[in-house]
Amino acid sequence: MEQAVTAPSIEAVRCALDPRGVAILGASDDVMKWGGSILNLLRKFKYPGAIYPVNPRADTVQGLKAYPSVSAIGQPVDVAVIVVPQALTLAAFKDCAKAGVKVVLMVTSQFAESGAEGAALQEQLLQVARRAGMRIIGPNCMGYFSSHNDLCLLNAQALMRNDVLIKGNIALISQSGALAGAMLARAYDLGAGFSFCVSLGNQADLEVCDFLEYAIADRNSQVIALYVEGVKDGARFLELLRAARVAGKPVLVVKAGRTALGQKAVQSHTASLAGEFGAFEASVRHAGAVLVDDFLELVAQAAAWGRLPAPSGPQVAVLSGSGGGGAVASDLVGEAGLEAATLSSETVQKLLALMPEAGARLPFDLGAVPAPQRAGDPQWLRKVLDTMLSDPNVGAGLFLMTTMPEMVPTAQTVVDINRESSKPVAFVNAASSAGTEAGAVLKAQGLVNFANIKEALAYLRNRLAYASATNEAPAALRFDAAAVQQAVAAWPDGLVSEFEAKRLLAAAGIPTTRGEWVRSADDAVRAAAAISYPVVMKLMSAQISHKSDVGGVVLGVADEAAVRQQFVALEQATGRVPGAQFDGVLVQQQVRADAELLIGTHWDAQFGAMLTIGLGGTLVELLKDTALLPANAGPQAIRRAIEGLRLYPLLTGYRGKPPVNVDALVDLALRFGQLATLLGPRLAECEANPVMARGDTVVVADARAVWQAAA
Amino acid sequence: MEQAVTAPSIEAVRCALDPRGVAILGASDDVMKWGGSILNLLRKFKYPGAIYPVNPRADTVQGLKAYPSVSAIGQPVDVAVIVVPQALTLAAFKDCAKAGVKVVLMVTSQFAESGAEGAALQEQLLQVARRAGMRIIGPNCMGYFSSHNDLCLLNAQALMRNDVLIKGNIALISQSGALAGAMLARAYDLGAGFSFCVSLGNQADLEVCDFLEYAIADRNSQVIALYVEGVKDGARFLELLRAARVAGKPVLVVKAGRTALGQKAVQSHTASLAGEFGAFEASVRHAGAVLVDDFLELVAQAAAWGRLPAPSGPQVAVLSGSGGGGAVASDLVGEAGLEAATLSSETVQKLLALMPEAGARLPFDLGAVPAPQRAGDPQWLRKVLDTMLSDPNVGAGLFLMTTMPEMVPTAQTVVDINRESSKPVAFVNAASSAGTEAGAVLKAQGLVNFANIKEALAYLRNRLAYASATNEAPAALRFDAAAVQQAVAAWPDGLVSEFEAKRLLAAAGIPTTRGEWVRSADDAVRAAAAISYPVVMKLMSAQISHKSDVGGVVLGVADEAAVRQQFVALEQATGRVPGAQFDGVLVQQQVRADAELLIGTHWDAQFGAMLTIGLGGTLVELLKDTALLPANAGPQAIRRAIEGLRLYPLLTGYRGKPPVNVDALVDLALRFGQLATLLGPRLAECEANPVMARGDTVVVADARAVWQAAA
Repeated sequence: MEQAVTAPSIEAVRCALDPRGVAILGASDDVMKWGGSILNLLRKFKYPGAIYPVNPRADTVQGLKAYPSVSAIGQPVDVAVIVVPQALTLAAFKDCAKAGVKVVLMVTSQFAESGAEGAALQEQLLQVARRAGMRIIGPNCMGYFSSHNDLCLLNAQALMRNDVLIKGNIALISQSGALAGAMLARAYDLGAGFSFCVSLGNQADLEVCDFLEYAIADRNSQVIALYVEGVKDGARFLELLRAARVAGKPVLVVKAGRTALGQKAVQSHTASLAGEFGAFEASVRHAGAVLVDDFLELVAQAAAWGRLPAPSGPQVAVLSGSGGGGAVASDLVGEAGLEAATLSSETVQKLLALMPEAGARLPFDLGAVPAPQRAGDPQWLRKVLDTMLSDPNVGAGLFLMTTMPEMVPTAQTVVDINRESSKPVAFVNAASSAGTEAGAVLKAQGLVNFANIKEALAYLRNRLAYASATNEAPAALRFDAAAVQQAVAAWPDGLVSEFEAKRLLAAAGIPTTRGEWVRSADDAVRAAAAISYPVVMKLMSAQISHKSDVGGVVLGVADEAAVRQQFVALEQATGRVPGAQFDGVLVQQQVRADAELLIGTHWDAQFGAMLTIGLGGTLVELLKDTALLPANAGPQAIRRAIEGLRLYPLLTGYRGKPPVNVDALVDLALRFGQLATLLGPRLAECEANPVMARGDTVVVADARAVWQAAA
Repeated sequence: MEQAVTAPSIEAVRCALDPRGVAILGASDDVMKWGGSILNLLRKFKYPGAIYPVNPRADTVQGLKAYPSVSAIGQPVDVAVIVVPQALTLAAFKDCAKAGVKVVLMVTSQFAESGAEGAALQEQLLQVARRAGMRIIGPNCMGYFSSHNDLCLLNAQALMRNDVLIKGNIALISQSGALAGAMLARAYDLGAGFSFCVSLGNQADLEVCDFLEYAIADRNSQVIALYVEGVKDGARFLELLRAARVAGKPVLVVKAGRTALGQKAVQSHTASLAGEFGAFEASVRHAGAVLVDDFLELVAQAAAWGRLPAPSGPQVAVLSGSGGGGAVASDLVGEAGLEAATLSSETVQKLLALMPEAGARLPFDLGAVPAPQRAGDPQWLRKVLDTMLSDPNVGAGLFLMTTMPEMVPTAQTVVDINRESSKPVAFVNAASSAGTEAGAVLKAQGLVNFANIKEALAYLRNRLAYASATNEAPAALRFDAAAVQQAVAAWPDGLVSEFEAKRLLAAAGIPTTRGEWVRSADDAVRAAAAISYPVVMKLMSAQISHKSDVGGVVLGVADEAAVRQQFVALEQATGRVPGAQFDGVLVQQQVRADAELLIGTHWDAQFGAMLTIGLGGTLVELLKDTALLPANAGPQAIRRAIEGLRLYPLLTGYRGKPPVNVDALVDLALRFGQLATLLGPRLAECEANPVMARGDTVVVADARAVWQAAA
């Protein structure tokens, strides 16, 4: 058979979500079975296209004419759903290929996720599909739906329990089918809907990126929610995240496998490469996406994103029916990295007329306002909210509804304000089932009932972070690429000495301490005199990476006698490390520092060159005061990362010291990132530590690198 | 009128919760009004005692005979509920006093919380009550109930919506009435009940501690949940927390006003002194109570505490119907400060027989187990759970229920296992309304449906922390109290010099660097020679506290010439601080350190002497790597605090350095705490920074103190 022409993935997704006809292989009368449930849901939500049950043992299924095979249908079948047992899937695939099916939705499991035998069969199916130009969703997935096309091929309890497939604006793309089901259930409870929702299973063919690409182009999808365990192609994923950003569509991501433990779970689950979360997080954030750590919060945040206006700033004004509730919420505002709003005196004056008893002080305790005051004017709460939000010192409101009088009209007011104001009021329903009716008011109008204060605040914080992302393009190369390539031209694989590593950095225009590599005490004395005392002396040995741990770094060597004495001592120190060979001594300029930094890069298999910036010198590993960025990050992003370090105040004139030239530091880090990006995967690691910073002087005092064999 | 004998507070609480008769002043036929609603709820929950509506304008109220005044009733009235307008409260109080009422429940507001006028009236009422030996709950509160006595005097929506006053084992004591209402609503949703629930309002008389004392003695209360904004008497509060611990009753506390913002909110709310949260948190934790940061979580945790067995360790085994859900939960386990369980090979072998497809690897993905495998044996899940929990490497289970088949029997199995096993399985209902029926199974049997993964993990973590608290008694005094008293005998108020502060520390047996306070360069040279070079020289000036910020500390002064030169330099440095006077120079032993610490005490108005231990020398303020303890903490607690510091690895042999003698550090901190406890409020602050630690040497290199006027 000839190799067929395969349609672009985005076209395959489009076809999957809006097919001319759907066949169900394994269709059943029994709705407790997959093949019965899927058919039932497809009809329940009134799919307008043709439906073809395929079942060689039946004439009709659920009252519809059944076919012995797909090829027997004789009409265009764009999508075939396969729910037959694993052993029958190969024959089913061949049947679909013969019938010209465009996309196979492969629900059946026991493939790559279950071991070598399953993986081999999955590969066989893939070959059949490739030859036929047929694309696959799954296997080992729960299906998908496209609400705007009234197409439901997702087997989920929430769909069985509800009569409407809500035509929403959130695209939900999930590697896990069970989580897609759980997220869908929460969406129904929130009155939120998905434009489409897909569970991807093993991603033998179509994968997260294909659906993401489609969602960016899809006018029904305004917010994109992802549950991912690992991505196949990091570069494409990031490219799409940037495209989504340009398209004005926020992408919210829950990533499983963020910790070693979660990673293990993911690997046993779908054999995805969970990857290193640090690189994932840094890359995805830099590309402008939002990370959320729980799948139920993902739904609430995505739903809120589509319905609430954006906060104009981090100042949150809290209102509650309970003074105590307002106080607790205010505590949590600060802990969520947001700020408590403080009203201008003009606003306070206006509000005093509306709530003289409560003193118009934030957080507002509506319970302190006598009922007649509120009840006398049906627009009272609306006026309070309008006045409050019109204050430029308020970025967002948070309404904490405890059990209180007039919950239903209160909820309606909050719905209205979110529709009509340019700033949001996040609504937390803390009244449990006593707030059911008020919650229903929000749900009916698609406004999120946040389940608790923290969830609402996490949403506001994420939305602000999204708005403030830099979006800068990579900076122009700040050095001569040829000089950098030249510096590494002769490098053998393995650990690179400080001397060589600094030569590379110097080629990229990065300042390094002056120094000379000497093999004798006499040369050391000569070098020290040329550099001027005091000097630093460092043991050189290809086998010793962390020199200071073995007494291999001597500071403040003050005169010739000391140089000679230390030369001998360093040679002897080599002998204390089994197998280490003495390669001489580096004699270097001694630099004083008010702050010591670590700047380094490493190559991540999925996301490429990554840049680390940290403060703390030898304490850096304990303090973990580091930031991680893609190595192609621009100067703004680098500056922000530096400003976000816990020890950043060390650089701004701490305890009477002169401030460090942060521009110089940004330039150094930028060059570092650029050289790592340029050199690619062979520069496995390159690290400058310490980088000595004092006033305008920012200079690399020590460095190391690892050069690895070309792939 | 004679001053009446006032009953002890605990007797007043007992009487309030189990009165012989209840009068309602302001009783109304209109159940939308307070005086109607309270009466209605009292009858709805079948209070068996006598009920006396008091209303001078009615013969009957809600069908009951009404009285014109309490004194007209002519029967014993233990509790009078006052809901009349503020202007009528004084007359009402006098009526109650005349009638011999024991406890007045004062719902009416507009007292101390609303300004000076209200505060004055509150004081007047208090005087009336004191003269009559009558106690007050409130004013400005929502009332209380005692479920075991079928007494409901709390006006809350959840009580209006439910037909049963659940006889639970949680005592809920809340300064906020609206929050008590919200917490009650959640408790109903969880199927949990309160033994009693009280909202305290302004606490004009009876307060948190009085109800806490009662709860500790009350056999119906097994778990105690508090919402507090501030406590009146810190020492009594801590004493009661310790008593609760001895009685085996966990106390869970939400404290509002943890941040500056929340504090502001609390002050405007009930005029409570929110206090400094750091001292509150440290003292309350040390006394063995548990802090929770959200009131809805407080309810879930208290309910779980009363129903679930305690975890045997921090190793959490996650099960889910979703592999993805298990992965997300596993990520959150680590982030919550717990550990992922790893099964022993014996357990894996046993489990493989039950779930060969899922490989018996944690987290368990029940969705990966074929339905026939599960369905073939109704006891399948129970066997999996029993086998898993019997592994000594598992401390607790977490069942994450996503939308999945067989949710109801699954929920029942989780209920059963929590009843019959010695280890808990926390249940998270992540199926939203698709999990309603399963949730109802738990609710009906009083087992908590945690709302999300984080809430369940916070509970497990808190319960483990509670179990591992040290409970040690204060240590015996390690020094001669008279010597310490003597050291401060002549101190004037204000800033105490390093020299004097070190004399105090030395009196408590705390090692300090040797040194001499000299006024001339000649004396400095003599002192340096006696100490031996190199020495440290420090500027002495009563006006300069942070010497190193003004160049007032010179390290490594190597010889006589340098001493003379630096003496002049220090004298000149004084001139750079306006108003500062040169008081000479301290010449001191120079000590090398592998780690620098800060150890200090300060006096907290509510909780007394507090001890701070931190690492990081001059960086300590940036790193915020400090622990706070009550100053009377014992050596175990101090050791744990040190071990919990982020930089603790610096003390255990970091990068080849010798380990620091932590026993010596514990001893130093213990003595520090003891001297602060001994000296009381006059020692406002005392701080040693840096404390130089290197191997067995732990010595104070600098110190300062603030001595304040006797109160």
